[in-house]
Amino acid sequence: MPAAAQATKRSRFHTMDRRPARSKPCSMSLVSRAWTWGPRGQGAILLVNCDKDNPKSSTIDCRDDRVLDNQDLQDMSLVTLNTNTPRDFFARHQLLLHVAKSEMDKVRVFQASRGNQISRYREVLGPKQPCHPLELPGGQHSTDFYVEGLAFPDANFPGLISLTVSLLDTSNPELPKTLVFQDSVVFRVAPWIMTPNTQPPEEVYVCRMLENEDFLKSVTALTQEAKCQLTVCSREQSVGDRWMQDEIEVGYIQAPHKTLPVVFDSPRNRGLKEFPIKCMLGPDFGYVTRGPQTGEVSDLDSFGNLEVSPPVKVGRKKYPLGRILIGSSCYPSNESEEMHQALQDFLSAQQVQAPVKLYSDWLFVGHVDEFLSFVPVHKGFRLLLASPRSCYRLFQEQLEEGHGEALLFEGVKKKKQKIKDVLSNEKLREDNSYVQKCIDWNREVLKRELGLTERDIVDIPQLFKLQDDLQGRLKAEAYFPNMVNMLVLGKHLGIPKPFGPIIDDRCCLEEKVRSLLEPLGLHCTFIDDFYAYHLRHGEVHCGTNVRRRPFSFKWWHMVP
Amino acid sequence: MPAAAQATKRSRFHTMDRRPARSKPCSMSLVSRAWTWGPRGQGAILLVNCDKDNPKSSTIDCRDDRVLDNQDLQDMSLVTLNTNTPRDFFARHQLLLHVAKSEMDKVRVFQASRGNQISRYREVLGPKQPCHPLELPGGQHSTDFYVEGLAFPDANFPGLISLTVSLLDTSNPELPKTLVFQDSVVFRVAPWIMTPNTQPPEEVYVCRMLENEDFLKSVTALTQEAKCQLTVCSREQSVGDRWMQDEIEVGYIQAPHKTLPVVFDSPRNRGLKEFPIKCMLGPDFGYVTRGPQTGEVSDLDSFGNLEVSPPVKVGRKKYPLGRILIGSSCYPSNESEEMHQALQDFLSAQQVQAPVKLYSDWLFVGHVDEFLSFVPVHKGFRLLLASPRSCYRLFQEQLEEGHGEALLFEGVKKKKQKIKDVLSNEKLREDNSYVQKCIDWNREVLKRELGLTERDIVDIPQLFKLQDDLQGRLKAEAYFPNMVNMLVLGKHLGIPKPFGPIIDDRCCLEEKVRSLLEPLGLHCTFIDDFYAYHLRHGEVHCGTNVRRRPFSFKWWHMVP
Repeated sequence: MPAAAQATKRSRFHTMDRRPARSKPCSMSLVSRAWTWGPRGQGAILLVNCDKDNPKSSTIDCRDDRVLDNQDLQDMSLVTLNTNTPRDFFARHQLLLHVAKSEMDKVRVFQASRGNQISRYREVLGPKQPCHPLELPGGQHSTDFYVEGLAFPDANFPGLISLTVSLLDTSNPELPKTLVFQDSVVFRVAPWIMTPNTQPPEEVYVCRMLENEDFLKSVTALTQEAKCQLTVCSREQSVGDRWMQDEIEVGYIQAPHKTLPVVFDSPRNRGLKEFPIKCMLGPDFGYVTRGPQTGEVSDLDSFGNLEVSPPVKVGRKKYPLGRILIGSSCYPSNESEEMHQALQDFLSAQQVQAPVKLYSDWLFVGHVDEFLSFVPVHKGFRLLLASPRSCYRLFQEQLEEGHGEALLFEGVKKKKQKIKDVLSNEKLREDNSYVQKCIDWNREVLKRELGLTERDIVDIPQLFKLQDDLQGRLKAEAYFPNMVNMLVLGKHLGIPKPFGPIIDDRCCLEEKVRSLLEPLGLHCTFIDDFYAYHLRHGEVHCGTNVRRRPFSFKWWHMVP
Repeated sequence: MPAAAQATKRSRFHTMDRRPARSKPCSMSLVSRAWTWGPRGQGAILLVNCDKDNPKSSTIDCRDDRVLDNQDLQDMSLVTLNTNTPRDFFARHQLLLHVAKSEMDKVRVFQASRGNQISRYREVLGPKQPCHPLELPGGQHSTDFYVEGLAFPDANFPGLISLTVSLLDTSNPELPKTLVFQDSVVFRVAPWIMTPNTQPPEEVYVCRMLENEDFLKSVTALTQEAKCQLTVCSREQSVGDRWMQDEIEVGYIQAPHKTLPVVFDSPRNRGLKEFPIKCMLGPDFGYVTRGPQTGEVSDLDSFGNLEVSPPVKVGRKKYPLGRILIGSSCYPSNESEEMHQALQDFLSAQQVQAPVKLYSDWLFVGHVDEFLSFVPVHKGFRLLLASPRSCYRLFQEQLEEGHGEALLFEGVKKKKQKIKDVLSNEKLREDNSYVQKCIDWNREVLKRELGLTERDIVDIPQLFKLQDDLQGRLKAEAYFPNMVNMLVLGKHLGIPKPFGPIIDDRCCLEEKVRSLLEPLGLHCTFIDDFYAYHLRHGEVHCGTNVRRRPFSFKWWHMVP
């Protein structure tokens, strides 16, 4: 077993039995003075105890200075201090356990006073207490400490915390206590990790609204096929907000002794504001949030604008947990929007999924999930990109085969559109030429930053149109349901039903997408989201969310 | 010339002449998308424009949004944008220069509107302006920009700033501006660098007081021998404060085009508070400060507690600019003191002289310069450590040679001490045994963190005594003038005159120190600081300061 895992499983302070000598009456073996990354790395790991093991508690566990129960204890890292001293050693010596004042608000250490009853665990180090004198009997003795993290890595906290024991000589009351020996164990607080579409789904989240009954049925059927759990947020809980993708991102934290899902709650705070705290946070389900909790947020702070790629390799550089993708403006101006700096800082500080900024500000809503998705294929993945170019090519082919009269929007709009009219609409063509340039820009960034080639990319036919955003700016939105905004549950894809031109009883857009994806082993289900989502500027992906299986790859084995 | 230096000398944006193509009517060559360390590293360098080129100005240059004069301009980095386009290109395109909103308060960019008169330079990017549309003529054109840094690297600022040009297609007024091309140059703000005793001295600072006339004469003579400048702070300027070492640390900042000294002003702020701003800050002399400017400071925030080692190698890891040494407590407690976190954060963030924490809290004043110094020797250096053990050994030898009656403090104290009485003073022996343990602790830390062996260390005989610090804690202070607290000017050492036992007309402590240091090529001058400094808890080093020659090694060639 590699060293990092060993050190994290059981981070121990050892004392070794040595013959008493004048200057070294006692000595302790080094566990890990430094924390190093990689498969041969060293150093212990700490979880932020951000779940809520007691359902009646009003707050997450690490805001509480008590140990709740054995389950709470299991979220913590064990440190064992072994002492082996002459019988009367502690009459002349003192042992202190301490943490730097600059780190004391990031960690809490509990000690069992006697026995293992929960009530006997008491806080010995924490935000109010950087140093604790240990009262130990002489002879051979073993003391267990339980350690919880209180803060995730962030802009001003690199994530490292050192616990130190100092042995002091107190034998001469006329002199100050003399430092004899010191030893430290370094913990890294486990980062919050996102899971890409290539990870198997475990639970799907969706809102029940007045008008989405059929949509819910379709999503229910898809989750059954994909064999994953479904959690429907009631109308009372969702408070008129259907954008489940935007309020949360479900990731996880991991230490060798424990893994737990952690919901990252967006500061967007619309109807679903209370959902993550009231319905997700709980025993072994953690919670974290960042950014301004009142006002000052933009559309780009919603988590439809926060995605993560599958594992990639860029030249020699490996990203075994993928890279975070966030949408942004391409240059700053008075009107330009960006994800709040506090969110960006948090995401960067996790280190293990180095974020990439994409250009999404050209969209009406402005989220990266409006033009890209990832799907799993055998031993890898494909990047799907919305493609006006591909759509025009498809429609042109259909025109040339005599289907110019075929109608888009059949069954959903009074004003249907003929293929030939779409093709001859110069304004629409200009809009889409502009959109194509914006997507092509991102295509190049994605190829460069994720190390992709054209063979890794599938173009999904899609048209957009430009609309005034009520602030005098023209922004793009989907002309028909935006197929790339899909729900990916393993090989099962829930794709917005495009209501494209019907040719030989079949929608040629659906047929095209099937022909692109089914040979890759994927199953396409087209879900009608037209009234309940599309007309409100979102689609299937925007209206759902997924908790996925954590990576089998351990984050501490990578080198950021 | 290595790439890093080239990029920093002339950081240019280039446009290359290309045949106009539909999607790429213009293209610019990449300068440096990333900033990398090391002799083959890439990326541009920025100086914090922290000097004051106009003596009449009330503030440092980078707080001013104007270019003062050509000297001010020379503190800045030049960026040249070369454009080569069709004549009418900018009728259909726009070029923007911008910086991320999160970095806009860290940089200022000036552009010459026409000609090179200073008045024509205007701020185009800065804390209030992240984006600037460039008005350029078509054809072949070259535009110069001058860039100044506004902030040093710190806890929440890693030091990197990107300037980006975006080329937008504006040809269709019905469409939003379309991003066509983007290119960036990455700057790193030059770190503040300290100079160790092994760097040649250029200027010595000392205060004139009522009672230090002889001391001043000695220091003046020493600076003349060492051929360096002497700046005497007048009695009016020093306002009763003689501790020149504690108020300031003189370092430097460096870019390929410019190097300037920068004084780091301690938040200690006693009598010398105004000295660095009023007497040091000026043309080509920069200024920086950190920490609470009113109250809340401890003795450990004084810069006698801030030293730097000569260049060292620890295993395979090189520190070509040495490592910063700061004194601290060895464990936190209610009474323990530490250098203010803002100072520690600033020092760490400079990256190039990774700080080491030593244990100095056992001292009455608490500064690292009370027990260590470095001296230059041929092709290297020695670490000098105060040594009670060495002093007892010396006195014991003298006793055994029949000099037990020889007197310490002759000429300076009424109550002189015989060698034999010192040796038989059990209390003093216990005190020094304790002090020796504290110094030995640091000896081991220094050997480990600086990669030293015993051969690199010279023990300087010294005794200490323990005193109540008025808060009930026993702290150590020098029993006779603390020789290790010396002024090092090249090979010329100004050592506190110890007033040790006179044997054969010579002070045996002075003789011992000469015998240790003179074979290394060093010249010892013993300076009487007894009344003016020693009795006030400081010595020669505490009462002086030195500006030294910057390293010939360029900081960007190292890998932190």
